[in-house]
Amino acid sequence: MAHLLSGHCTFTLPITTKSKNQNCFSAISFQKCKSSSLTLKPHLKARQNKPLTAFATSTISQENSSKTHENSNDQFSNPKNKKVMVIGGDGYCGWATALYLSKKGYDVAVVDNLVRRLFDHQLGLESLTPIASIQNRIKRWKLLTGKTISLYVGDICDFEFLAESFKSFEPDAVVHFGEQRSAPYSMIDRSRAVFTQHNNVIGTLNVLFAIKEFREECHLVKLGTMGEYGTPNIDIEEGYITITHNGRTDTLPYPKQAGSFYHLSKVHDSHNIAFTCRAWGLRATDLNQGVVYGLRTDETEMHEELCNRFDYDGVFGTALNRFCVQAAVGHPLTVYGKGGQTRGYLDIRDTVQCVELAIANPANPGEFRVFNQFTEQFSVNELASLVTKAGEKLGLEVKAVSVPNPRVEAEEHYYNAKHTKLIELGLVPHLLSDSLLDSLLNFTIKYKDRVDTAQIMPSVSWKKIGAKPKTVSV
Amino acid sequence: MAHLLSGHCTFTLPITTKSKNQNCFSAISFQKCKSSSLTLKPHLKARQNKPLTAFATSTISQENSSKTHENSNDQFSNPKNKKVMVIGGDGYCGWATALYLSKKGYDVAVVDNLVRRLFDHQLGLESLTPIASIQNRIKRWKLLTGKTISLYVGDICDFEFLAESFKSFEPDAVVHFGEQRSAPYSMIDRSRAVFTQHNNVIGTLNVLFAIKEFREECHLVKLGTMGEYGTPNIDIEEGYITITHNGRTDTLPYPKQAGSFYHLSKVHDSHNIAFTCRAWGLRATDLNQGVVYGLRTDETEMHEELCNRFDYDGVFGTALNRFCVQAAVGHPLTVYGKGGQTRGYLDIRDTVQCVELAIANPANPGEFRVFNQFTEQFSVNELASLVTKAGEKLGLEVKAVSVPNPRVEAEEHYYNAKHTKLIELGLVPHLLSDSLLDSLLNFTIKYKDRVDTAQIMPSVSWKKIGAKPKTVSV
Repeated sequence: MAHLLSGHCTFTLPITTKSKNQNCFSAISFQKCKSSSLTLKPHLKARQNKPLTAFATSTISQENSSKTHENSNDQFSNPKNKKVMVIGGDGYCGWATALYLSKKGYDVAVVDNLVRRLFDHQLGLESLTPIASIQNRIKRWKLLTGKTISLYVGDICDFEFLAESFKSFEPDAVVHFGEQRSAPYSMIDRSRAVFTQHNNVIGTLNVLFAIKEFREECHLVKLGTMGEYGTPNIDIEEGYITITHNGRTDTLPYPKQAGSFYHLSKVHDSHNIAFTCRAWGLRATDLNQGVVYGLRTDETEMHEELCNRFDYDGVFGTALNRFCVQAAVGHPLTVYGKGGQTRGYLDIRDTVQCVELAIANPANPGEFRVFNQFTEQFSVNELASLVTKAGEKLGLEVKAVSVPNPRVEAEEHYYNAKHTKLIELGLVPHLLSDSLLDSLLNFTIKYKDRVDTAQIMPSVSWKKIGAKPKTVSV
Repeated sequence: MAHLLSGHCTFTLPITTKSKNQNCFSAISFQKCKSSSLTLKPHLKARQNKPLTAFATSTISQENSSKTHENSNDQFSNPKNKKVMVIGGDGYCGWATALYLSKKGYDVAVVDNLVRRLFDHQLGLESLTPIASIQNRIKRWKLLTGKTISLYVGDICDFEFLAESFKSFEPDAVVHFGEQRSAPYSMIDRSRAVFTQHNNVIGTLNVLFAIKEFREECHLVKLGTMGEYGTPNIDIEEGYITITHNGRTDTLPYPKQAGSFYHLSKVHDSHNIAFTCRAWGLRATDLNQGVVYGLRTDETEMHEELCNRFDYDGVFGTALNRFCVQAAVGHPLTVYGKGGQTRGYLDIRDTVQCVELAIANPANPGEFRVFNQFTEQFSVNELASLVTKAGEKLGLEVKAVSVPNPRVEAEEHYYNAKHTKLIELGLVPHLLSDSLLDSLLNFTIKYKDRVDTAQIMPSVSWKKIGAKPKTVSV
């Protein structure tokens, strides 16, 4: 029915690929390795009755690889013998995290079905930055650093695939970014809403079962979202709240009020994971992440083939990234409604730090630990104001306009969310200073010719979502 | 791909059935209508490109039907012109509710994929009571009361089917029992856990989309479970709790701590439904039901073909029902662990009352209303003690034994759950008095020869659930 495939790339780059099923993934390609000759030879026999899996490992002998290091330093020679599986490692946060962990000396595997790239095709969207294939990304990383990142291409909703990946890689920690992560995408139509909840909930259930079955000591680091909490009129705590009620006291999960089918899927995951920690003794950290901005990390800026994706469209673009692109192309900043919507934000360089801190300081068996992963709070109006001022410094004429809010959300509200636990573990935040904003703005200006202005305005309405499939471009 | 089918049954019982696909449901059968001749004729042409649907309506002219009423009274001639779709109307609570609502004068449709009957086949289980097919149940009801119950056979996870059912029946209220409702079933193996969450979450999402698309004013009455709350160390409120924290106050969803993949699926549903009330203005009532016991309602005892199912096995049987069967056959009452587990309980006659009260007093548009639906609290030890005493009165020798708890749950804990809202709407509870227990015990004694004692002991372990399919009988 399906096959286990292995592509094995040495320094002289004999490549092995084997694909008996073209429906799910294409053969592993290293077409940009121009400095090396390419040969193809079978490495592992395809096994019958195994799930469809692409497993690519670039291995370079240390002796040879040292010649190719552009940034060889101590960081790269400090492995911790800890194997980390990054599910969703081809995505915006996942790719930056995979590289950061690899640099830190972890043995990293990326597990991804690459469906995020398919969404772009289907919706007619494109990253502001040109991004290389995951195979070329991994190969380039290998050439630059000598570090191997394994690649398993497949769908974690397919338990057979996931089981094979677990048995093959034997992770000590799983970082789980492998979810449909856009609120607007989940609100396009019924089929996307159902896809989002099915994909995220069942994929995570499968990860939990895989850990229980194959790697019971494995630490699950799950990316959640601050959006799980909604905007309550009281302080937001980190996962739990101590309540005194009618003279009695208990510490309970913080109440959730998610605002989209996507955010709801994360709430469902949180409950499922908490249960398995309690019932099975699994260990998990839930990172309730704020809105991520920025592009470059120390690792992704090492080479253009390592460049991260940067979404600015109304479906996958996050607020600050969108505003910077809008400023760069002279489009008014699109403030939804009154603009008082306040959220936690963080630089992508802090995302990767936080994940590493969680891995380096794992939860105890049976513990479901929740960290709020952001560094600063801003309202949308405050963000627009910061971008406007930074744009003026660069000679850009920037103005913000209010557009009808496509979401259903409070536009003026109290918001005070705690976020001390990661600081206590050692997080050193990159704050959104003017200089950082300048840099992010300069970056969007560099790529402004790639902007499709038709993608800037919000196209998905929370209220107008219908049962019928939306077949035209959104 | 599939077809809309209609079976139309008149007083002289010419039956029309049309099935072009035998995989999903069998032709509607009225084999026990011995008093009438059976003829088959096509009623509605099968339509192309429509989902696989069985739609059976028994229609009887009032003039003719009056001759067949065994219990004709005012109750039966007081229709309220309100159309109620009972999803899962062939199940334990669903069937009793469908009849009760029909008797009350509502125009009732049962929507069910009959998969509960399949579970019995697959697990080698059987209701203590012999139960008629849903088709014969509905026909018998018609013969006895003149009341029509429409039947739509299909899966609500199939949106095309659900959409056709909505467009055909045009419900004013939907009572949603259509979920896999056994905690042990959801803990058999990974595939049942995934099935339970997929089936329950996606089915409910589809119901929400169907209401939004076709019947925006329709009131959703969703069966939840008291198990969503877990066993917190503070009083359990009805759905929401007002929290004062750091000097500020808000009323938020009551924190959830569900104890199985089934209970978790209900938590997920609650969050999804609450969101659609907020975002789309839907109106919904969540009935967080306690453990239901009992068999007979005024309606189901009218005829043996109306008899409800009664589960006593370790997978689908509820605590008190199981104890009564154990007492009847001389099996020790199986108290799990220490027996201090305390829950809310209610008589099935109160289940049907509660649902009707919710329908008669609908939630407002945009309102997500939560009622705790039970009448009394008992610990397992208290239940065992009540059954022991009642058994002694009937000359039975009853003893309780502690068996290893297959679940992961607190066996000694605080429990005080509010349940005033349904009382305020007019619920008159049937309390678990000695006389009731006598009656329930007598009933199980009547059927004790049908008991398969191999099904009595718990067979599903919360800790031992595995990723591999459990292929042998559980």
